[in-house]
Amino acid sequence: MTDAVVVTSRRREATVQKLLDAAAQVFAEEGLDAASVEAICDRAGFTRGAFYSNFESKDELFLELAGRVARARVDGVRERVAQLERGGQLHDVATDALSLVQQVLDVSGDDRLAILLMSEIRIHALRDPQLGAAYLAQDAQMRASVAQIISDIAQAKTLRFRVPADEVARLMLTVWESESVRATMAGLDYAAVCRRTSEEIARVAQLVIEPPPA
Amino acid sequence: MTDAVVVTSRRREATVQKLLDAAAQVFAEEGLDAASVEAICDRAGFTRGAFYSNFESKDELFLELAGRVARARVDGVRERVAQLERGGQLHDVATDALSLVQQVLDVSGDDRLAILLMSEIRIHALRDPQLGAAYLAQDAQMRASVAQIISDIAQAKTLRFRVPADEVARLMLTVWESESVRATMAGLDYAAVCRRTSEEIARVAQLVIEPPPA
Repeated sequence: MTDAVVVTSRRREATVQKLLDAAAQVFAEEGLDAASVEAICDRAGFTRGAFYSNFESKDELFLELAGRVARARVDGVRERVAQLERGGQLHDVATDALSLVQQVLDVSGDDRLAILLMSEIRIHALRDPQLGAAYLAQDAQMRASVAQIISDIAQAKTLRFRVPADEVARLMLTVWESESVRATMAGLDYAAVCRRTSEEIARVAQLVIEPPPA
Repeated sequence: MTDAVVVTSRRREATVQKLLDAAAQVFAEEGLDAASVEAICDRAGFTRGAFYSNFESKDELFLELAGRVARARVDGVRERVAQLERGGQLHDVATDALSLVQQVLDVSGDDRLAILLMSEIRIHALRDPQLGAAYLAQDAQMRASVAQIISDIAQAKTLRFRVPADEVARLMLTVWESESVRATMAGLDYAAVCRRTSEEIARVAQLVIEPPPA
């Protein structure tokens, strides 16, 4: 790539990021239906031209936003696994498996904005088959990533699960989603939402981990 | 009660039911935000006066609608338990516990409209603290009912669970909600949504039921 292309592509990515940040705010305040492309552009300080040269529609922008939230969540979990690996806890026999799973999944906290965003995308995906297919594809990808992380931990700790890793991932993600929504609804602050979600995830871990033979 | 009062109260209940039915349709087509009180009244064939003499606001109507959906779900499960009781299967040692739990929870199917309704209420409950409190109260009530049913079955079948009945109920309801949303998103028809949800519930049952001592 020439320098000019790199600069253009960086500038484009910066524009996209600003549009996404602005959209996330407008959406949280007004809901997806009420949030107009105009309001998003005003908030970002861009013209509609800048919007439509980067996104075909508001739906496309929201799906991209949801994708970034989902990827950030998986990246958070991966980063925690890497930390534990560097710190030696992952392979340390003294660290018990349950506390390890809990530590890994303790990055559960999306903030209120992300939880609203995911819920908003979910209901629109229920109404629109194209958004629905995209949502389910993203959901499957997320589950596969988490299942891989779970398999890695299981191997490192010679853990055994009572159901396949894919089922463990599905159950944990389901409980994660549902608990973070309930805790947010109850008006808990960010730290409390994370704590509550982490407790519920730990309960699931206790259910799915095969107890070591006595 | 005099005859006149009975007639008035029946007529009132019929009006409320028609308003709720109309609102459920308008909401499914347009979403909660876009559905106007006017559109609901037009569909029901009533004036706005009839609406506001029964509901304070659109939110109040939607919460009542969600309450009816939730109660219908619990009633469905209760009715199935009563059927099995009458048929003798509940106390028949030949009926294994897992298939019993599966049969009881096989009434999982809300239709697409009810799933959309619950999802719509959920996102509005995330934004509005008053709706949020009402949603959580309803959620807790539903969980308590299902926990009671689960305890009854456990006692009848001398089943043991690996976690308290309340936790079993919470996990089953969470998986039920999440799976029915995903199956609906995938465009499955009503029967297939029920089948998929029932399979997932059975997996949870297998996880939470303590295997009998060998």
